[in-house]
Amino acid sequence: MIIIFILKYRHEIVGVVTQVGYNVKKFKVGDKAAIGGVIGSCGTCSCCQDDMETYCPKFVTAYTFFEGQPINYGGFSDIYVVNEHFAIRFPDTLPLESGAPLLCAGISVYSPMKYFGLSEAGKHLGVVGLGGLGHLAVKFAKAFGMKVTVISTSPNKKEEAIERFGADSFLVSRDTEEMQAAMGTMDGIIDTVSGPHPLNPLVDLLKWNGKLILVGVDVKPAELSLLPLIVGRKLIAGSAGGGLKETQEMIDFAAKHNIAADVEVIPMDYMNTAMERIKKGDIRYRFVIDIGNTLRA
Amino acid sequence: MIIIFILKYRHEIVGVVTQVGYNVKKFKVGDKAAIGGVIGSCGTCSCCQDDMETYCPKFVTAYTFFEGQPINYGGFSDIYVVNEHFAIRFPDTLPLESGAPLLCAGISVYSPMKYFGLSEAGKHLGVVGLGGLGHLAVKFAKAFGMKVTVISTSPNKKEEAIERFGADSFLVSRDTEEMQAAMGTMDGIIDTVSGPHPLNPLVDLLKWNGKLILVGVDVKPAELSLLPLIVGRKLIAGSAGGGLKETQEMIDFAAKHNIAADVEVIPMDYMNTAMERIKKGDIRYRFVIDIGNTLRA
Repeated sequence: MIIIFILKYRHEIVGVVTQVGYNVKKFKVGDKAAIGGVIGSCGTCSCCQDDMETYCPKFVTAYTFFEGQPINYGGFSDIYVVNEHFAIRFPDTLPLESGAPLLCAGISVYSPMKYFGLSEAGKHLGVVGLGGLGHLAVKFAKAFGMKVTVISTSPNKKEEAIERFGADSFLVSRDTEEMQAAMGTMDGIIDTVSGPHPLNPLVDLLKWNGKLILVGVDVKPAELSLLPLIVGRKLIAGSAGGGLKETQEMIDFAAKHNIAADVEVIPMDYMNTAMERIKKGDIRYRFVIDIGNTLRA
Repeated sequence: MIIIFILKYRHEIVGVVTQVGYNVKKFKVGDKAAIGGVIGSCGTCSCCQDDMETYCPKFVTAYTFFEGQPINYGGFSDIYVVNEHFAIRFPDTLPLESGAPLLCAGISVYSPMKYFGLSEAGKHLGVVGLGGLGHLAVKFAKAFGMKVTVISTSPNKKEEAIERFGADSFLVSRDTEEMQAAMGTMDGIIDTVSGPHPLNPLVDLLKWNGKLILVGVDVKPAELSLLPLIVGRKLIAGSAGGGLKETQEMIDFAAKHNIAADVEVIPMDYMNTAMERIKKGDIRYRFVIDIGNTLRA
């Protein structure tokens, strides 16, 4: 059941299979394979039974995440050993570089769009934040046939949102006039921003029955007026990605619709510079590290 | 299309039809009829098209609610003229007195239970607050075949919750040990409490995919940690009752399952005393005013 493969990239890990255990059915040597955030789960809880291993209380991350866990460098290593259940078949038609971010950023937006009914053609989706997750949310939503509005603090992302990713419109979240004019127009919003930001203006953008889905994590408590939820039967929910089965479905869908991330491939020794650039927001839209070729350089 | 009927009770209004317009099909003189919170809506918006008139942006309340609206005493009058669309056929087998609170308190809990999938046999529902709405939520949930836990600040309501209304268990919300032991056990929670109260301990009671539904209105912003929503794909939503079609369905269901409110019938001149008693929480579980017999006394 164990496969081993050489990695080209990191968490959101893709690579090529170099050895397989004798019971492995899903892969053979030479196949492309991928790993997302989770490489283990209990297999028996209701989350695992529902193929949503990411929500298993005993899930094991692909890299050391919590203090006290055994050290695991995730994609910061050139070989990875994993149970085949937690590896994804990587479509041949997807480039490794730009397909890699689908493994976490992609499933993080795809899964809640499916689960919360925000993948239906003709519906209007807001996407808050045009970053690694946001630009993929726009691409998936357009592939689903939705109307898409990008909501961002940065007016300079308008052209990219519309011209490059095909969004239908763009709202500057600090522009109260623009925001007011768009009130009550959206069926749902995928909010990819992890820093603190006001949620009620987003709730106001929703139609009745509208859904605000948070996929960015802000650890500080938020202040929220609840009355608008009641008056409009609206909801605020969170989502932490999808399970293995859905990740496979997502990546097959992406391959079919030519959806991949916009990436900048970097060598390992560029890592510290990349971190500095991320802090400044100077990234379009995901750094992908070529571990295989540069880790031992 | 207009019917006129004499009222016995107030908002959550029931009475007997005394006159009907020549096009009225739904009622004849002598029928029992009832009115909930809404007596008018635009008829064309998506809410009205979905038979959810309560959410219509142009809805008209059964009593003056917003400043500046024309004065309307609602059930504080002995005759009411209403379009038949906004009147409910009141089942003959339901007592007027105890059936009246179903028109708002009843539909306020029934509608979100149906809409959010919290009416399925075997599921575990938490009900926060054992008051006018809460005790009806328990009765509906038991009729749906659910497991029900009442969550309350008042330990002295435990016996009533279990012995009188058939709840399966009871949690004192201030007892952190009890609350911790019940973490992750509920499919959904109907929160009927309108005053400020912490929501995160309620979110913690939910299983993954669990739903916290607010039907009480707290106008002040709440403080809320959002991370637990993300980690457990949980949601917080609001609900402001149901439309006319669903209210009819609810009351027919109530009649079939012998669901009615526990009430204390009072005369009009007891009103001020009743208000004082409500402030003290001295009410089991709804005052019903006999307007018809006591308004002109």
